Amino acid sequence: MTVLAIDIGGTKLATGVVNAAGELISEHRTPTPPDGDAEAIWSALVAGVEQALDGAGRPPLEAIGTGCGGPMHWPSGVVSPLTMHGWRDFPLRSRLQEQFGVPVRLHNDAVCVAAAEHWRGAGQGRANMLGMVVSTGVGGGLILGGQLHDGATGNGGHVGHVVVDPAGPPCRCGGHGCLEAIARGPAVAEWAVRQGWDDGEHTAAAVTVSARAGNEIALAAITRAGRAVGIALASTVALLDLEIVCIGGGLAQAGDLLFGPLGEAYTEHAGVHYARTPRVVPAALGQRAGLIGAAALVLAGERYWHG
Amino acid sequence: MTVLAIDIGGTKLATGVVNAAGELISEHRTPTPPDGDAEAIWSALVAGVEQALDGAGRPPLEAIGTGCGGPMHWPSGVVSPLTMHGWRDFPLRSRLQEQFGVPVRLHNDAVCVAAAEHWRGAGQGRANMLGMVVSTGVGGGLILGGQLHDGATGNGGHVGHVVVDPAGPPCRCGGHGCLEAIARGPAVAEWAVRQGWDDGEHTAAAVTVSARAGNEIALAAITRAGRAVGIALASTVALLDLEIVCIGGGLAQAGDLLFGPLGEAYTEHAGVHYARTPRVVPAALGQRAGLIGAAALVLAGERYWHG
Repeated sequence: MTVLAIDIGGTKLATGVVNAAGELISEHRTPTPPDGDAEAIWSALVAGVEQALDGAGRPPLEAIGTGCGGPMHWPSGVVSPLTMHGWRDFPLRSRLQEQFGVPVRLHNDAVCVAAAEHWRGAGQGRANMLGMVVSTGVGGGLILGGQLHDGATGNGGHVGHVVVDPAGPPCRCGGHGCLEAIARGPAVAEWAVRQGWDDGEHTAAAVTVSARAGNEIALAAITRAGRAVGIALASTVALLDLEIVCIGGGLAQAGDLLFGPLGEAYTEHAGVHYARTPRVVPAALGQRAGLIGAAALVLAGERYWHG
Repeated sequence: MTVLAIDIGGTKLATGVVNAAGELISEHRTPTPPDGDAEAIWSALVAGVEQALDGAGRPPLEAIGTGCGGPMHWPSGVVSPLTMHGWRDFPLRSRLQEQFGVPVRLHNDAVCVAAAEHWRGAGQGRANMLGMVVSTGVGGGLILGGQLHDGATGNGGHVGHVVVDPAGPPCRCGGHGCLEAIARGPAVAEWAVRQGWDDGEHTAAAVTVSARAGNEIALAAITRAGRAVGIALASTVALLDLEIVCIGGGLAQAGDLLFGPLGEAYTEHAGVHYARTPRVVPAALGQRAGLIGAAALVLAGERYWHG
């Protein structure tokens, strides 16, 4: 079975063809048209799909799996990605179905990353796993009892809104003290700048470079984010009795700078016996995880698709 | 099918006979022998079982469902309840099986309460639910996608160790800032006493009575616990995309004194759109929930038993 995989985010439109073994036969990336209207984004996506199909020698297409930034109505696949203002209530799933004439499955992009890490990455063989992405936002997906947990509205696994500090900063969700309000990339950069840091572009990537070079404020900014992730994971693992947590996304590239304080905060808070043993590891699949997980919605639907 | 149900805690040994409709045909309660050794507790339990069987006219027994305080090895049912020092690594499941010659299923007592509320109580018909107990400890169980979530070691749903304040008090688990460290009954009473409250026995029940009578410190103590529960639920609902939360246990008897501040803290923190709608309600089955849920492990095993 050959599946077209699509991974849609605020900065890139990724498309690929995936075989039944979960291998990417072709892959194409194009920037998301900045400030594009609904049809401009759609046209860029369709062009990207054609490129991916060409790259794979135009195999007969049997189905499409898609990951897209949230929020969305699920499983209907009507999407309004936070970072893509051109798509508001855009009927992505049905548009793809009409355009390409094959069944389409669609889920949150972070859920697809979690499915990928479980199917072919760092979480293989574990029945209870959180896969999370620390990037512009903080998202995730849960595998529980070997099955993807969708939740009532398809938002299961959204670890970014676990409260890590009830007195913490406001979150764009309307709450405050959420993990995302502290650990998402832009929040890390903003915090560093507010503390007087000015050693590069105001991005989490630049803060990471500066921290590696020994800048104290940059180090403190990554440490603060890492501790917030550790606290959220202590809560999550205690609540769900997980075996493993896989962490991907831009900020995970900070490596030990992030995972060190993360592990310390986790150990301080995860006191209950069964929460002491799970492994917290970097994701294994890198930027291909989104496409592989989108394909998993189809190719391993018995575990990852209940739409 | 007739099932013997057992619910074992630090203060009471409850036994009952339950028919296939989930109705208690007979019920017996006896105090847990205080400071009893392993065999003294066991003898009291067996005597309680005989009483329950007598009360139901000694029906032919087909299976036993049991809830017991944790921690335990699951599903083997070797138990070491925190509040029963006489049982350490007590092989409860196999002892029951030998004694009564029928299959035995056993789970955490708070998990049984959650199963009961889903099967016959306030959570009926909802696919994604947390059932929690706020009592001497704070425990719970999760129904996700219509199935009980066990977790890797049977501890899924243990909401008591969600971190609600990273700077909060030490918890008996070894962590700190856990929900249980703030909201469990003895912690509520201790906090009130430390603030100068001395208007009754040093128990959460007395604090509740005093709060109802308008005592400011007692009110603040219940409010503090309620807010802690609200924060933990904001995290839990955001993470799992739940439809309903049912709250039972002694402190839930405080009614609006608890649920008022709980709802306020929940609303402050649960900003993400899908977390704004779930209902947080009192449990419906009262003190019978433990027995009914123990029976559900057998009578509705397709949903509540994966051991």
